Amino acid sequence: MSPFTGSAARTPHWEHLRVDLTDGVATVTLARPEKLNALTFGAYADLRDLLAELSRERSVRALVLAGEGRGFCSGGDVDEIIGATLGMDTARLLDFNRMTGQVVRAIRECPFPVIAAVHGVAAGAGAVLALAADFRVADPSARFAFLFTRVGLSGGDMGAAYLLPRVVGLGHATRLLMLGDPVRAPEAERIGLISELTEEGTADEAAQQLAHRLADGPALAFAQTKALLTAELDMPLAASVELDASTQALLMNSADYAEFHAAFTEKRPPKWSGR
Amino acid sequence: MSPFTGSAARTPHWEHLRVDLTDGVATVTLARPEKLNALTFGAYADLRDLLAELSRERSVRALVLAGEGRGFCSGGDVDEIIGATLGMDTARLLDFNRMTGQVVRAIRECPFPVIAAVHGVAAGAGAVLALAADFRVADPSARFAFLFTRVGLSGGDMGAAYLLPRVVGLGHATRLLMLGDPVRAPEAERIGLISELTEEGTADEAAQQLAHRLADGPALAFAQTKALLTAELDMPLAASVELDASTQALLMNSADYAEFHAAFTEKRPPKWSGR
Amino acid sequence: MSPFTGSAARTPHWEHLRVDLTDGVATVTLARPEKLNALTFGAYADLRDLLAELSRERSVRALVLAGEGRGFCSGGDVDEIIGATLGMDTARLLDFNRMTGQVVRAIRECPFPVIAAVHGVAAGAGAVLALAADFRVADPSARFAFLFTRVGLSGGDMGAAYLLPRVVGLGHATRLLMLGDPVRAPEAERIGLISELTEEGTADEAAQQLAHRLADGPALAFAQTKALLTAELDMPLAASVELDASTQALLMNSADYAEFHAAFTEKRPPKWSGR
Repeated sequence: MSPFTGSAARTPHWEHLRVDLTDGVATVTLARPEKLNALTFGAYADLRDLLAELSRERSVRALVLAGEGRGFCSGGDVDEIIGATLGMDTARLLDFNRMTGQVVRAIRECPFPVIAAVHGVAAGAGAVLALAADFRVADPSARFAFLFTRVGLSGGDMGAAYLLPRVVGLGHATRLLMLGDPVRAPEAERIGLISELTEEGTADEAAQQLAHRLADGPALAFAQTKALLTAELDMPLAASVELDASTQALLMNSADYAEFHAAFTEKRPPKWSGR
Repeated sequence: MSPFTGSAARTPHWEHLRVDLTDGVATVTLARPEKLNALTFGAYADLRDLLAELSRERSVRALVLAGEGRGFCSGGDVDEIIGATLGMDTARLLDFNRMTGQVVRAIRECPFPVIAAVHGVAAGAGAVLALAADFRVADPSARFAFLFTRVGLSGGDMGAAYLLPRVVGLGHATRLLMLGDPVRAPEAERIGLISELTEEGTADEAAQQLAHRLADGPALAFAQTKALLTAELDMPLAASVELDASTQALLMNSADYAEFHAAFTEKRPPKWSGR
Repeated sequence: MSPFTGSAARTPHWEHLRVDLTDGVATVTLARPEKLNALTFGAYADLRDLLAELSRERSVRALVLAGEGRGFCSGGDVDEIIGATLGMDTARLLDFNRMTGQVVRAIRECPFPVIAAVHGVAAGAGAVLALAADFRVADPSARFAFLFTRVGLSGGDMGAAYLLPRVVGLGHATRLLMLGDPVRAPEAERIGLISELTEEGTADEAAQQLAHRLADGPALAFAQTKALLTAELDMPLAASVELDASTQALLMNSADYAEFHAAFTEKRPPKWSGR
């Protein structure tokens, strides 16, 4: 993803998500609380398109994905998605499942850190959205459930069979994806699925604090750290070491690296420009 | 592996293993309790052949691997295997070591979940058989020991240097494979080597319960979940997301997915057919 | 790496490191305690060259990397490295960053186990040196900090974005590399970053004990275990199983494997020759 733009206009209004941008932090809220923020075709498409648009904006330096109401996200809507897919032909089914995967790829590949703020249920596709984020900030009410086999589908949905073993190890991942049992906050923290466990009711606030800390920091350094973490999962050691070397050589020409040294020498905090 | 069969007949009797098939659950018992179920050439060959045969049977929907007597499996027999290999030529040594690896590949690649029911010692090849399973159900007496360096061999035996870092992380895996020290149940649970820790003496029973739960569930969904977990360890993110998309599109045409929606709508439990 | 030598002479004196070789254990000490063992260009180059030279010596069977004084290593020196790189051209920056990566590759690829003995701070490049080791033996004063983003650089430095997710999982690795926050010993042990947690002030002693235990063991078996752990992180399952099979067939022709069987039969401890 690159900030270069051509003729494409910004989307003037996001119908299926609530989007706020303040001080470099984009907050994207799943806002169908009466349905536990169940995802619809429109919500998936908006997430995919929004992440692509925000990736072109230099002003976005961190993104929080949150859920309104009693939980984070209950996954694909049983009527609006499961029911609808039963009537789709093969090509349309593939189009739908590719779209959901594109959301996960966009979360992993956008140039800013993504923070899932989780309280209550994160189920099915909701659990995978949280899993794809760089940080999962969760309160003790959080419970993750990779429910796919419960509806007769594969636990490997939207990259879950790729991501979950790399986050919690193959043993836990097999159990979670096969059985679809809920994982409550203490276990999620123990196995490495939660990045930061907060006090009850403060996941959104803690996620905002982390997002603002990241937005105030060296954006280019964060973007490259994320890009290398994503890329090097798929690369051998020698190539990874070479990629690290060329990335650091590049960043040693950046304004922020010089600013760190100047600030250190002058015994003051650095003023990061993200360049 | 595929259920299509040609001229090959079923093996009428397994000499080196005890095999039972009840209600979709195959229970394979290592039954040389006087030798702590030490493995012989015949036991390895039978495990390899049995897994291939069971993979062709639609009726097998879960497999439990258990050990009779005081422990799960003490590994390759010191006299019958180590002693015998000292007299083998190079080609024969390669034949033997390929066979043991084929057992591990068969466990990872068969189309049903494999559950190791572990009590007491799981050592050497016994530890790797448990490691290759999808679930390790163990009681507090369980202890795992990857003993290979203790006999002058490589800790990377039967895929252990591939699997163990992906289950418990590279740091723990290095320690376990290099040193061969026993890992007792509390540590094994802490590092992610145990899937389910049971009460003393109930690992077999808990493994059967889990196997019957899996056998009563959506077999095709479980088979695909296992296949994707195995495959995506070796695939990059973008390709994994594409594989997930085409797998889900396929399963959205399955009888079980339609049955879930019908059952949900009618507020009754689904009747899974595995198709 | 291979013990075959040509015309190249041994380095008669290491200026930037303290090196001791006793009973098969090489102890390499970062010895700039007044600077918390901050690394210099010379120290990186010496580590790279020393590891290459020691890899040709059959007599080296384990290596301990330790730090003198209040901590293990505070990373690259702010003045001597960060300041100096600000004046380097692109080619020189790449040369420098490739050198630091070569140290990590040498630690992963040398034919003997490497043990980091960590007390106090292991920061920046110091944290990555410890991460690259096979064992991290640490006391309760240990704290790891992957500080790179704090100076405006990528958290993926010297292979860290490759190694850390494979040691502690992607979730913890993202947090550690993005934020650069210190990880204290209890958390480091919990997430799998510490191999052995010792009593306060005894990390060096425990590291020596482990090194001597390894040096007294079957050196060829350890070397192959390490080589397979390193290689199989980058290999698919089927190829890993094949590599294991050919490695074990090779080692079943080794003197140490025969010695194990003889010793077992004669009920005496084996005398390992490493051949």
